[in-house]
Amino acid sequence: MRQSKLFTRARREAPADEMARNAQLLIRAGYVHKEMAGVYSYLPLGLRVIEKIKAIVREEMDALGGQEIIMSTLQRKEVWEQTDRWSDEKVDVWFKAKLAAGGEVGFGWSHEEPITDMMTQFISSYRDLPAYVYQFQTKLRNELRAKSGIMRGREFVMKDMYSYTLDEAAHKAFYDSAIAAYLRVFERTGVGDQTFLTFASGGAFTEFSHEFQTLSDAGEDTVYLHREKKLAVNDEVLRDDVLAKLGMKRDELEEVKAVEVGNIFDFGGVKSQQLGLMYKNAAGESVPVHLGSYGIGITRLMGVIVETTADDKGLIWPAAVAPFFVHLVSLGKGSDEITKTAEGVYAELVEVGVEVLYDDRDMSAGQKFAESDLIGIPSRIIVGKDAATTGTFEVVERASGKVEKLSREALLARFSHA
Amino acid sequence: MRQSKLFTRARREAPADEMARNAQLLIRAGYVHKEMAGVYSYLPLGLRVIEKIKAIVREEMDALGGQEIIMSTLQRKEVWEQTDRWSDEKVDVWFKAKLAAGGEVGFGWSHEEPITDMMTQFISSYRDLPAYVYQFQTKLRNELRAKSGIMRGREFVMKDMYSYTLDEAAHKAFYDSAIAAYLRVFERTGVGDQTFLTFASGGAFTEFSHEFQTLSDAGEDTVYLHREKKLAVNDEVLRDDVLAKLGMKRDELEEVKAVEVGNIFDFGGVKSQQLGLMYKNAAGESVPVHLGSYGIGITRLMGVIVETTADDKGLIWPAAVAPFFVHLVSLGKGSDEITKTAEGVYAELVEVGVEVLYDDRDMSAGQKFAESDLIGIPSRIIVGKDAATTGTFEVVERASGKVEKLSREALLARFSHA
Repeated sequence: MRQSKLFTRARREAPADEMARNAQLLIRAGYVHKEMAGVYSYLPLGLRVIEKIKAIVREEMDALGGQEIIMSTLQRKEVWEQTDRWSDEKVDVWFKAKLAAGGEVGFGWSHEEPITDMMTQFISSYRDLPAYVYQFQTKLRNELRAKSGIMRGREFVMKDMYSYTLDEAAHKAFYDSAIAAYLRVFERTGVGDQTFLTFASGGAFTEFSHEFQTLSDAGEDTVYLHREKKLAVNDEVLRDDVLAKLGMKRDELEEVKAVEVGNIFDFGGVKSQQLGLMYKNAAGESVPVHLGSYGIGITRLMGVIVETTADDKGLIWPAAVAPFFVHLVSLGKGSDEITKTAEGVYAELVEVGVEVLYDDRDMSAGQKFAESDLIGIPSRIIVGKDAATTGTFEVVERASGKVEKLSREALLARFSHA
Repeated sequence: MRQSKLFTRARREAPADEMARNAQLLIRAGYVHKEMAGVYSYLPLGLRVIEKIKAIVREEMDALGGQEIIMSTLQRKEVWEQTDRWSDEKVDVWFKAKLAAGGEVGFGWSHEEPITDMMTQFISSYRDLPAYVYQFQTKLRNELRAKSGIMRGREFVMKDMYSYTLDEAAHKAFYDSAIAAYLRVFERTGVGDQTFLTFASGGAFTEFSHEFQTLSDAGEDTVYLHREKKLAVNDEVLRDDVLAKLGMKRDELEEVKAVEVGNIFDFGGVKSQQLGLMYKNAAGESVPVHLGSYGIGITRLMGVIVETTADDKGLIWPAAVAPFFVHLVSLGKGSDEITKTAEGVYAELVEVGVEVLYDDRDMSAGQKFAESDLIGIPSRIIVGKDAATTGTFEVVERASGKVEKLSREALLARFSHA
């Protein structure tokens, strides 16, 4: 894409009321627009990052046998009353409104209840199990505070998956494969090394639930990390009996700040029973379906990636989630030789399928490089005088700052195999 | 995809309170789930149709130079007050709620105001123009009545695009290219022959706006069609002076029922002025940006396609928007020769990239055919005794009922080129 056509542009300053580093950088680089505290719109560059993250998550969920759907945002009061989660005392983040036609609706802050209610239409026999269903949904939460940028919004995108299985054993097998899939997601999106499976409370339903916590000073959570085991516990379960069970000693744990990028939960049969999701087993008995739920905060993950990778100059995207793979920066003006060379390389890269942001604007080299650093595309190709005369291109890796000089042939070979 | 794995299944009956034929069929075939009146969730088959429609629309919008973004659902009161559209007297479909942190938010029923407000961040000079921005957004509208299925929901997906141009002339050129792109969208999604550019009132802003109206008895609109000119007018502009201007005579018009699948609108500089979206022209004067808006109801279009194509047996999808291209129906049971043949053909079709729904379930032929008719995939390949013994496959075209007998080679050749 030609940067001269992109309607966004880099800004020197983020809005004064924006306290979170992730949102400050994303706003300055033109990825997001702040609508109000905790509410952001996603501009072309930002939407591309979201779609890259979603594509990775979708691949992993599909590989688990997940089937993608999209539930409604508007939700029925009656469904949530069945599990006693309609009242504002029980759930303090509801947005609700009166229907013009009478009655009240809720705006989806979660979808466990509506999805499970819907599944009563499709599951009645053991022959209908298992079923794994997921969606990418915009969740709305009436949070009192929202000061972590896109890491905790009043509006955010979440992937939520639900597993409907026969029994504990079938659930456990799927749950374990979901853990493996989640770890792959975080690995592929570039935060694998800093993300740890974390034991948390299972509430009324089961002994443990699990979180995926990414180490970050910007995190709102504190977890206790056993680096060697690559496991953590949160403060709900920081007890000697739990540590003994997990084979950990208190003095082996580090207290660290972290962001919860995913969580998985075993509801057993409780919620299904409340919502009437029962099936007839082989003996003809009516049994509640075993429910598991599996969330990944998509926009939160984007914020976490920013927090863990960015440097003083700006964003640094891991290649798999970058909006573009190459930032082609022309230092030419008008129709000179440099511009002609840049146009030719741009056409060739696009031809072989490389995603290129092409800075074809008439602007100083210093300003272009500063913006390019801020935008954070993995590789920058500089087309300057050398490129036009001797055919040598400078390639700068954003993360390391490493500079290489490549011929046009070497350049195309490098990026067409990426 | 194996139908045995699909968690949805065909139902004999739609919910008793569902009056619209499009929703009745889509619910019975397992494409959508009714959450409440005017609110539907989209199941795997339904989501595939939506994504196909979106892909076509996205291609056409990108070709116009459109840049995709996604705005927030939560909207600021202050923005809508600037154009005097916050009060329920002015806009009667608002959903609003109180913020826990204080103040009120609106839920996006439209995005003209927030997008235009946002563009003040990016447009200040004539050098920043033009900009064309679009999104696929879930709109929420507090409709008093909702009885047209997915054709008029309280929650629905819309593609809305906004053009920001220098002046009337630049606007007009883009507006005309948008009309052409819209007509291509309706052609490609299979309702081109029944969809007509329709003159409507331009309100306070301009002489005319334009609608795209698809003829359907299920339509809530009445328009007056000049078949020969392939143009219509709606009742707002059914006046002799307008007809004279368009070169039409009253007695050449047919009164027909129709559904508005798209609309385009010229706001001139009015809304930009209200929202402070001004630019400095070459002479240094501050001038309001010329705004156009361009909508296509994505889920409505899906409903209209159903209304215009379905027959007594069920849905009939145009190939370009069908959830799958081929419905492979095996009449085999267990591991017999028929099953082996079907499995082989399934693997081969998937290998060459054909989108196949494979009915591998153990069920009577009659039931499978009835469900296949209901689901409405363009081509059905039947794998029965003949296929296993003589290698002859029956291929049935869903729309026409036309039956062909093809060898395995001919079969693969046919569909791998589709």
